[in-house]
Amino acid sequence: MTAPPHEALPAGPGRGLPDTQQGMRRRNLSRVLHTVHAEGPLSRAAVASRIGLTRAAVSTLVDELIRAGLLDELGPERPGRAGRVGRPGSALALSDRGPAGIGAVVGVDHLEVCAVDLRGQVRARAVRHAANRGRRPGPVIGELTALVRQVVTETEREGLWPAGLAVAVPGLVARDARTVVRAPNLDWHGTDLGALLPDDLPLTVDNEANFGGLAELWLGEGVPRDFLHVSAEIGIGAALVVDGRLLRGTRGFAGELGHVPVRPEGPACACGGRGCLEQYAGKEAVLRAAGVEPGEDRVGLLAERAAGGDKDVRRALRGAGSALGIALTGAVNLLDPETVVLGGALADLAPWLLPALERELSRRTTGPARAVTVSRLGPEGPLLGAAHSVVRAVLDDPAAVSGRS
Amino acid sequence: MTAPPHEALPAGPGRGLPDTQQGMRRRNLSRVLHTVHAEGPLSRAAVASRIGLTRAAVSTLVDELIRAGLLDELGPERPGRAGRVGRPGSALALSDRGPAGIGAVVGVDHLEVCAVDLRGQVRARAVRHAANRGRRPGPVIGELTALVRQVVTETEREGLWPAGLAVAVPGLVARDARTVVRAPNLDWHGTDLGALLPDDLPLTVDNEANFGGLAELWLGEGVPRDFLHVSAEIGIGAALVVDGRLLRGTRGFAGELGHVPVRPEGPACACGGRGCLEQYAGKEAVLRAAGVEPGEDRVGLLAERAAGGDKDVRRALRGAGSALGIALTGAVNLLDPETVVLGGALADLAPWLLPALERELSRRTTGPARAVTVSRLGPEGPLLGAAHSVVRAVLDDPAAVSGRS
Repeated sequence: MTAPPHEALPAGPGRGLPDTQQGMRRRNLSRVLHTVHAEGPLSRAAVASRIGLTRAAVSTLVDELIRAGLLDELGPERPGRAGRVGRPGSALALSDRGPAGIGAVVGVDHLEVCAVDLRGQVRARAVRHAANRGRRPGPVIGELTALVRQVVTETEREGLWPAGLAVAVPGLVARDARTVVRAPNLDWHGTDLGALLPDDLPLTVDNEANFGGLAELWLGEGVPRDFLHVSAEIGIGAALVVDGRLLRGTRGFAGELGHVPVRPEGPACACGGRGCLEQYAGKEAVLRAAGVEPGEDRVGLLAERAAGGDKDVRRALRGAGSALGIALTGAVNLLDPETVVLGGALADLAPWLLPALERELSRRTTGPARAVTVSRLGPEGPLLGAAHSVVRAVLDDPAAVSGRS
Repeated sequence: MTAPPHEALPAGPGRGLPDTQQGMRRRNLSRVLHTVHAEGPLSRAAVASRIGLTRAAVSTLVDELIRAGLLDELGPERPGRAGRVGRPGSALALSDRGPAGIGAVVGVDHLEVCAVDLRGQVRARAVRHAANRGRRPGPVIGELTALVRQVVTETEREGLWPAGLAVAVPGLVARDARTVVRAPNLDWHGTDLGALLPDDLPLTVDNEANFGGLAELWLGEGVPRDFLHVSAEIGIGAALVVDGRLLRGTRGFAGELGHVPVRPEGPACACGGRGCLEQYAGKEAVLRAAGVEPGEDRVGLLAERAAGGDKDVRRALRGAGSALGIALTGAVNLLDPETVVLGGALADLAPWLLPALERELSRRTTGPARAVTVSRLGPEGPLLGAAHSVVRAVLDDPAAVSGRS
């Protein structure tokens, strides 16, 4: 029994591709790109030794990737890092004039779009403040489309071409990756964004917490491959990353940490339940408990007052941290993640949330204390996660886009 | 972007094998076996059309599997089912004289071992009642080993050979699949079962709830590939099956539903927490609430009294069902499974648990009501799951065992 159930999980890039000679070639193209992405610049020989193929086989793959505009051969004037490359002139890097991932965020009070190249650099960016709560999807997505056009134009001016558009929304998204099933804070229900957005770009729509979690996986420093990413904008959401992949659930609704019951007889929640986490740690609940009026940038205001020693604000954040700790105890018992990462608005409030959160978590769970870390990306996570998801799709299956450049 | 993050999950058997020509051959051997397992008896031509390989390629693979004793060519006296097979004599079936999976359960009050052949038939079985709580691991595993020897001897008498041993334990198992980290109801801590069990059989040790969930996945009727399997023996455990695979967690401890907080200020639990699900729905809590003394087969007694209309027992089971519903609300919000399956002892008590459980779950979660189903396997799940895990490992990588027959 050399393949016990523990080891049945696959590894490596391009794993969704069919198991044929053609599929193997596509997987190997992906392996070359991922290797250069992770460790580049690298020579052909270095790539070959890392992925266990012959130098000749790798050269064929590299030539194809260069022709497709995905890899660059760095000239002799830009030698690779010492010790990595045999001949300086032969170092390979991901192209900075190839495909770009376009990421977008539909927020309750803003719209934002950016473009990221294969090297992970943000190359263009546009933002628009707008009170989107309760507006119909058509005009909102119309404004978003204008921002997308602006970012695409800027991107093309730099010699890049858009490989796809990924949109983060504050709500539940169906597994078709285009329909917003329910976004209570926008008051959108069953909205097909695919019908409203330009159809000349491959589209992926996903929940903002999912993109935030993926950003942490791809861009976070020292983040493991098994973690629970908790974020808050208006609601509270979580992304469950298991073995480097997002756990989405049957309908795509996994990660609804905000509706985990904290006190089963607590206050009624809009979801139909009682005593959900959002009733204790959601933005509105915290503002109410702190005696702060709703308005723009309330997170900044809470952080400022907490830093200034405001007792009401600190007590409200302690209460929210404690409720988060109770809900996370359940999540940690169910999922056994390696770590919990606080992202989004929670990252900015972490100094006042963490002590109560960690106290609940450590007294309620056995074994070594759980690491709770704070995201470096904070509120940028969903936007970067969206743009990078397009770039990752190119790295995972370069053959699918190489005909379109 | 033809490979969005939603579709990055792999499909099909043998997916853990390396991506080389040799790995492809091993995966194709596995595909042939899985196809015959799922739909057999089948002719070579039928297998070829189902897995998309040429008849000649399949014949080579089939010949290798017949030589290894994993496939049988059924004689002309045993024709395949009508419409499935071209020539009756050429139908292929899994061998019933090939490898057998040996499954074992270490229970608090019994030890049990069985052997299952490639066709899924139980071919031998042995059980021993014993009060194992608080006994040292050495003598208990000594008795288990005697039962294993007895079942292996019986199996070999029928022309089968044991391909591996899988042991279900009521506790947390490390990801090395041999060390019991903590089994509170046996009072075992850090026990390496690999050092105590015979070393002539490949060994896998796992939590009983995990094997129960896998049994449901492999043997349950109409069970989807995304579900949460909840079971109770002394404690309460869950197995999370996502896209047909068990979610194990970083340390192997996922599924601790029994320690999800139901009422954060509730009674203290042995785990260090307060108000855990086990304090409301664990066997001891339910017996206490029902006014029933602890003892042997208390589940049978509870079911009998509840069926007879005993008001105290019914109230206790309603309370347990309601606590299960609250804890499952959290789990469903986090994981979005297609269904929840009640297994183990809970299956026998389902008629009195389900109404309160479903009431909590449906009033606390949005969307269509969650299907809660009852396992047909009940307390047999962990034993069958263990034995079948060995058989599955053979189907997943036949090349790994074919040299050992």
